[in-house]
Amino acid sequence: MSEHGPVDTLKAIGKRITEAIGEGRFPVVDLPNRATDNIEFDSKLNQFVLGSSRVKRDSSNLKHIRSFAQLTWVAYFAKQLLESDRTSSLRDLYYSSEAFGVRFNDQAESDRIITDLECLTGQPREAFGIFPEERSSIFGSVKLNYTVPGYEGREVDLTLSPDGFPIGRALMTAEPVETDAEMILAVESGGMFSRLIETKAWKRYQAILVQLGGQPPRSTRALMRRLHEAFGLPVFLFTDGDPWGMHIAQVVKSGSANAAHILGLTIPSANWIGVTPEDIREYSLPSEPMASADLKRLDELARDIRYEGPDWQNHIAEFRSLSRKAEQQAFSRYGMDFVVDTYLPDKLE
Amino acid sequence: MSEHGPVDTLKAIGKRITEAIGEGRFPVVDLPNRATDNIEFDSKLNQFVLGSSRVKRDSSNLKHIRSFAQLTWVAYFAKQLLESDRTSSLRDLYYSSEAFGVRFNDQAESDRIITDLECLTGQPREAFGIFPEERSSIFGSVKLNYTVPGYEGREVDLTLSPDGFPIGRALMTAEPVETDAEMILAVESGGMFSRLIETKAWKRYQAILVQLGGQPPRSTRALMRRLHEAFGLPVFLFTDGDPWGMHIAQVVKSGSANAAHILGLTIPSANWIGVTPEDIREYSLPSEPMASADLKRLDELARDIRYEGPDWQNHIAEFRSLSRKAEQQAFSRYGMDFVVDTYLPDKLE
Repeated sequence: MSEHGPVDTLKAIGKRITEAIGEGRFPVVDLPNRATDNIEFDSKLNQFVLGSSRVKRDSSNLKHIRSFAQLTWVAYFAKQLLESDRTSSLRDLYYSSEAFGVRFNDQAESDRIITDLECLTGQPREAFGIFPEERSSIFGSVKLNYTVPGYEGREVDLTLSPDGFPIGRALMTAEPVETDAEMILAVESGGMFSRLIETKAWKRYQAILVQLGGQPPRSTRALMRRLHEAFGLPVFLFTDGDPWGMHIAQVVKSGSANAAHILGLTIPSANWIGVTPEDIREYSLPSEPMASADLKRLDELARDIRYEGPDWQNHIAEFRSLSRKAEQQAFSRYGMDFVVDTYLPDKLE
Repeated sequence: MSEHGPVDTLKAIGKRITEAIGEGRFPVVDLPNRATDNIEFDSKLNQFVLGSSRVKRDSSNLKHIRSFAQLTWVAYFAKQLLESDRTSSLRDLYYSSEAFGVRFNDQAESDRIITDLECLTGQPREAFGIFPEERSSIFGSVKLNYTVPGYEGREVDLTLSPDGFPIGRALMTAEPVETDAEMILAVESGGMFSRLIETKAWKRYQAILVQLGGQPPRSTRALMRRLHEAFGLPVFLFTDGDPWGMHIAQVVKSGSANAAHILGLTIPSANWIGVTPEDIREYSLPSEPMASADLKRLDELARDIRYEGPDWQNHIAEFRSLSRKAEQQAFSRYGMDFVVDTYLPDKLE
């Protein structure tokens, strides 16, 4: 991924601001409005997008001057990161602001301004070198070329580390070269990821394995989508059997309202293979009663446009009538290899 | 690391049990007592150890029969893992028990029985292929040979993945081959870890970098100790400036009472380089007032035998008088590279 794009975008923003000042006008930035009533679901793209309403940050308006200055500084800092080939965590950016005399009340405020920059540019913060702390992992028969400084053009084979590879900036920006795999299989827990590596299930299924670890960072979703598109690989998602696990799969598939301003992260054809409520019943999995938070979450999902289809509504109804949940590790009640030898092959067919 | 040892240990336990049964006696297992009053600090080893008191699990005693059976099953399961070259998470082991009709009330109970097995054998659960979910990462100019199945003797160079390598079973059991490094520098946050990689600080300091991510898993401590011993590298620990960060460093150095039954994880010569309370003052770092939980933790540490030395007591007194805490990212107030160009070189001298 070339980083030419983001720098040019930032320069264009800066140019508009300095031109306004040069002409004696107060600079104004206008960006898509990301208030709830301007978020709509685009069923063709299968993701949330922003509507046509826009908001202004007008430096002549006393109410706007603070967020205008903060946004300008975040854009400046992002350009610095890109030009010096650095990355920053969200937290680090918050602290860095002090070096410039820019004030944020707390990290929540600086995070919000970073989202403003995403809205303004249509690009995810990761494109500007700004990453969250969380990482997930990947393993499988696929080769990519790094593009990060010092590693340009160096090939990495993702079977080389039997503990997997963390998905950071280097893998997120690497270019897919070739693969023997025929699918991407993403799993929720680290334990399941390790099990699939050490039983050589990745070879048997010809799968690239991804460990999501809860709601995966966007860098992980971006890499999955890139591999999906570059090699035409179908994507299968295996999570815990509860509303939260189901929703991890849904966000990989259809994205989130929070990221309605960013295109290119969703994988509409991705399949949630389980643990479904039907699996819990059919396999008599060890399960726990749902807590009230789980049931409340089911109600929210039932009304969510991403769950409109009959299959999703069925899963929700089944979860409700069952009123129990199970983890993906629960298959171990049938022995360590049951999930690898029986459950997953059945589901992946 | 050869896995011959643990299997033999487990076989010997099984043999004693079956012999007793063969001779018409109720089998008895006896193991070191890990109650608080049997834990003492060994200042020569610089770690907690268990005293001479022991406890019995007697299968003829109705009160013992449940934990006796659980312990026997955990030992059996561990042997299965080792002989089939598998690993299991703590959670997975809990679920696996159902496949064998062995009952645990909850995961806390199976975790406790795993600790019993550690006590009985003097070996950490990881030696039996039982791992927690958490992983930390490593990066640097060091080569190791994998010993895990399918990768035996394959060399890995820990500069090959610019996102770092997760420390799982494969790296934990790899054999150190050679290094250009002159120290091990372990940092608390992923953001700091990435910063030190991308600024090539690892080259400049000739350091192997470790990301601890809070209290590091034992596999990480074991790998750090192995590299420390194999190459005679000094270890430096850079954490957040609060009682919790200081204690991350202390546990790497002196271990914990919870692991008093395991030798070989501590690094007595390791150095905590900051963020010290003195640093917070001297560098006028952005800081937050300590919460009552922080102050309570300081009181506990002040009475803790591991903090007996005058340097530690000074740090605690300084933290108290300052009554503020700061994160390692706080140095960014002086610009992105201050920590790499100024603070760390000063501290590492």
